[in-house]
Amino acid sequence: MKIYDTEGFPNPIRVRIALKEKQMTDQVEFIPVDVPGGEHKRDAYLKKNPTGTVPALELDDGTIISECTAITEFLDHSSGTPVLTGETAKQRAIIHMMQRRAEVGLLDAVAAYFHHATPGLGPAVEGIQCAQWGEIQLQRARDGMRYFDDVLAKQPYLAGDKFTMADITAFAGLIFAGFAKINIPEDLVNLKTWHRRISQRPSIAGIE
Amino acid sequence: MKIYDTEGFPNPIRVRIALKEKQMTDQVEFIPVDVPGGEHKRDAYLKKNPTGTVPALELDDGTIISECTAITEFLDHSSGTPVLTGETAKQRAIIHMMQRRAEVGLLDAVAAYFHHATPGLGPAVEGIQCAQWGEIQLQRARDGMRYFDDVLAKQPYLAGDKFTMADITAFAGLIFAGFAKINIPEDLVNLKTWHRRISQRPSIAGIE
Repeated sequence: MKIYDTEGFPNPIRVRIALKEKQMTDQVEFIPVDVPGGEHKRDAYLKKNPTGTVPALELDDGTIISECTAITEFLDHSSGTPVLTGETAKQRAIIHMMQRRAEVGLLDAVAAYFHHATPGLGPAVEGIQCAQWGEIQLQRARDGMRYFDDVLAKQPYLAGDKFTMADITAFAGLIFAGFAKINIPEDLVNLKTWHRRISQRPSIAGIE
Repeated sequence: MKIYDTEGFPNPIRVRIALKEKQMTDQVEFIPVDVPGGEHKRDAYLKKNPTGTVPALELDDGTIISECTAITEFLDHSSGTPVLTGETAKQRAIIHMMQRRAEVGLLDAVAAYFHHATPGLGPAVEGIQCAQWGEIQLQRARDGMRYFDDVLAKQPYLAGDKFTMADITAFAGLIFAGFAKINIPEDLVNLKTWHRRISQRPSIAGIE
């Protein structure tokens, strides 16, 4: 299998963590995509992934899977018992709910702020920018951090007592937030404790 | 089980279709939420679902599941073989990828246009509006329709040869598009044929 991605970027980080959690990293070849240079918006890459996003997974039969949730579902059901997406109907539902909340309320909100209310990746790569939207999403990201802090006051991980896909998405959101210079407010001690704790996992250690 | 929703609204439609596909409609009690009256943004509802969205599913043990993908995962794994979210790792990946593309490229894009570039649900319910963002998302929805037309030139359903969660999401997107007066361009014959065909399913017939 091949992964087309850009090392160190937030969404690629999600899939690289999932690969390590599943001990599957040695089963894929990483093909670098020059996102700062706009390679993801040119025809050769768009033929593979029409949404122009990284990462994308290419299966051995040539099928291309984009979208981190979809790639994580594939990895989690390919090898061993699903551990990142849950086993029972209720576990699956809670994990997918919290993963979506981590996307909408943190990772995608930070991304919108970065791409619209800051220079982002620069004029050659960014399309039309909408600064007002970026600022609205900055507030959403701040509200999201506070919401996740509340959740983590009651349980060790976003979807309950186990590390899941939802934690990976929120971790990538905080990585992106740090890059975009959005700090975690000091009073969100539960979120900070969780962040320190999962940063020590072998799948995550070293990612900053 | 209980479903908190607003009949006829796009996201509630997704879960009602999934319930019918799974023949589970008689297992839930529907509790109406007055979204046009702003009930979803008041404390009583926010205590149940802090994201303030409809629909939300309440399990018999009191657990609340929001987010349509999460609710659909629950229903699909609760009764019978999963038919809406796939069985193999590859099926699951393709379905989740196409469902996400249907959200980002159609349903959510139309929603952003409606809530930001039109009066939406009115000043008492809408928060800060950002018209420029709404117009950008209108173009995204139009591009999305064209992309799905291309997909449906090659296969009968969005994720392949079977009706899945991805088709439900895209159908809800077109329902919302019609409500927001965004027409399907006449030349998108594959999308129009698919729309007519799935409109005849027992789970969908009568929804306009």
